[in-house]
Amino acid sequence: MNLKDFIYDVKDFPNKGVNFKDITPLLNNVEAFQYVIEQISIFVKESKANVVVAPEARGFLLASAVAFNTKTRFVLVRKPGKLPRKVLDIEYTLEYGTNHQQMHVGDIQPGDKVVIIDDILATGGTIEAIIDLVNQQQGQVSGISFLADLTDLHDKSLLSKYRVQKLIEY
Amino acid sequence: MNLKDFIYDVKDFPNKGVNFKDITPLLNNVEAFQYVIEQISIFVKESKANVVVAPEARGFLLASAVAFNTKTRFVLVRKPGKLPRKVLDIEYTLEYGTNHQQMHVGDIQPGDKVVIIDDILATGGTIEAIIDLVNQQQGQVSGISFLADLTDLHDKSLLSKYRVQKLIEY
Repeated sequence: MNLKDFIYDVKDFPNKGVNFKDITPLLNNVEAFQYVIEQISIFVKESKANVVVAPEARGFLLASAVAFNTKTRFVLVRKPGKLPRKVLDIEYTLEYGTNHQQMHVGDIQPGDKVVIIDDILATGGTIEAIIDLVNQQQGQVSGISFLADLTDLHDKSLLSKYRVQKLIEY
Repeated sequence: MNLKDFIYDVKDFPNKGVNFKDITPLLNNVEAFQYVIEQISIFVKESKANVVVAPEARGFLLASAVAFNTKTRFVLVRKPGKLPRKVLDIEYTLEYGTNHQQMHVGDIQPGDKVVIIDDILATGGTIEAIIDLVNQQQGQVSGISFLADLTDLHDKSLLSKYRVQKLIEY
């Protein structure tokens, strides 16, 4: 199965010059979605993880099914104003301005083995923030899984300390 | 299993006077999450659906796992500016102002049997917009599933034309 057939390039979205990867055709194809979830699930099991963590909103599209299929706990990372109880907050720098990612305090327990799941690896800012949120709660990042890696947008050494799964590379 | 044990009330979130239902403890408990996904999956199979539709972001938390588990297609409903290709757009009225929900044109095929999945039924505005998006593409709403129904926030007759699953009532 060529997964790239199910990911559409949309030019100049959301801004001029950006080539957006639209993963919705993959979700809307039973065979492709089943295949992707099974592949990520194998990685989670090999990582001996007991928790999957994913950022809103597109990370949720994969991580929910993987958490169910692997019988792992499912922990959310969200933008400010979404998680209602006490949160840990990480601020990180984007090309223009800053962004925040938050996790509920106590969602990760010391010693938890965590796989982080997201759809696309671009500059890596979000993933580095999530690693920080896991580490602050004494969790261990056992693996990081991406549906697709946009290899031109980050240094080759990014995440080289970690076990990383990439189902597609561009 | 008492599912209410895994849904926390958070008073005055996001605004004063609102009693927010936080479903994240349910996602973070393997037995509770497995149970909920299996129950919704049974409903999807009984509805003979071939597609599940869910709105961002919390609908995704349940629908991804259900789509995987029932081998149905997974179609997204999102807020403006998120779906990159040509969309159908529904504007609907809230207590103050208006909101929009969008779906990619062509995501539903004529004759598709659709179950709509969301976490919480409150006033029902979002669900009515999604029903409209499905009907505009000649899909059939075979069922609507909610993790929890806040029964005081809507008329009893809301959605009475449809097969509706509610795992919890408040």
